Amino acid sequence: MRIDYPPAIQRLVAQLKSLPGLGPRSAERLMIWLLQRSDERIPLLSNTLLEVKELIIPCEDCGFFIESGSSCLLCHDPRRHRQQLCVVEQAADVLRMERSGAFQGLYHVLGGRLSPLDNVTPEDLRIESLLSRARDLHTEEVIIALGSDVEGEATASYIADLLRPAGIAVTRLAQGMPAGGGLDHVDELTLYQALHGRRKMG
Amino acid sequence: MRIDYPPAIQRLVAQLKSLPGLGPRSAERLMIWLLQRSDERIPLLSNTLLEVKELIIPCEDCGFFIESGSSCLLCHDPRRHRQQLCVVEQAADVLRMERSGAFQGLYHVLGGRLSPLDNVTPEDLRIESLLSRARDLHTEEVIIALGSDVEGEATASYIADLLRPAGIAVTRLAQGMPAGGGLDHVDELTLYQALHGRRKMG
Repeated sequence: MRIDYPPAIQRLVAQLKSLPGLGPRSAERLMIWLLQRSDERIPLLSNTLLEVKELIIPCEDCGFFIESGSSCLLCHDPRRHRQQLCVVEQAADVLRMERSGAFQGLYHVLGGRLSPLDNVTPEDLRIESLLSRARDLHTEEVIIALGSDVEGEATASYIADLLRPAGIAVTRLAQGMPAGGGLDHVDELTLYQALHGRRKMG
Repeated sequence: MRIDYPPAIQRLVAQLKSLPGLGPRSAERLMIWLLQRSDERIPLLSNTLLEVKELIIPCEDCGFFIESGSSCLLCHDPRRHRQQLCVVEQAADVLRMERSGAFQGLYHVLGGRLSPLDNVTPEDLRIESLLSRARDLHTEEVIIALGSDVEGEATASYIADLLRPAGIAVTRLAQGMPAGGGLDHVDELTLYQALHGRRKMG
């Protein structure tokens, strides 16, 4: 008979293993570590996970995270420039831009980028709402802040082609960013410089 | 005003960051990944964490994980050699020994190793119960399967000194293990060889 952990532990290890960045060994180490805490760490983590799942929704306008029932601090800040719209791939990119301090306009989270191989089509992204928002806000400039890999470039071109006919200037971050890298791989200064060196598309 | 994630997300990232092996960036990436799943992954993980916390206890005898209310498969297996007791640092080490296939006796999980710098004293480990168990089981041989770093060596010597007066043979894994490494750094074959080359202490 092959000895293994009790089923509940096996389920936990399997679920931890399926998380990004955790392999079989680190999942097992994490489980042991969690089980050795006699404090309230496990119930706390369990509760916070549920809380996030229940409480957090994307802002209908920009797509950044908000607590349901509350309004978006970014979209409703009267000091932000409402004629500039910065398109990012995911919500975490909004904070990266904010930390660089270089941008004072509004954001639009796409929720991904076009990737035919992964079956990500324009309908899967928040592109339709980007167009209607740019129209409603009388946006003068859309700044595309996507990574400069193949899929980022393709997504940027696709969006630029849709926006240009509406007379909206479409710019993109300067190529100060490392080739093939996304926003999660650059430091704040590089991001700052990339924003200021942005150039008009097409 | 500095923009940040909603409080619930900040709490989740802080808790993820405090887990071993997760830095600030991987914690944030994990949070984003979890939030992007629309499936039941978060409630499932949350629930499994609680389940493990509520259901899993250490076996009173060997210290391996069991579900509360059920009996230990290792301690109650009649085919195992009851005269051999293998001392390991933590529950995960029991499975590592089992996977090597080299050992058929009983286990004893210490729950750590002596470390004056971290305030781990003999009272913090399951040493008292090791002595009474060895007496009750009429153990002939105690095999010490701890890592060969300084703290592992010190713990091994301490235990050997307590057991030898009772006429119990104390052996330890052969030095096939890498210097300074614990059981989580060796492959199954090395562990197998190390067990078979074990030598008597003192």
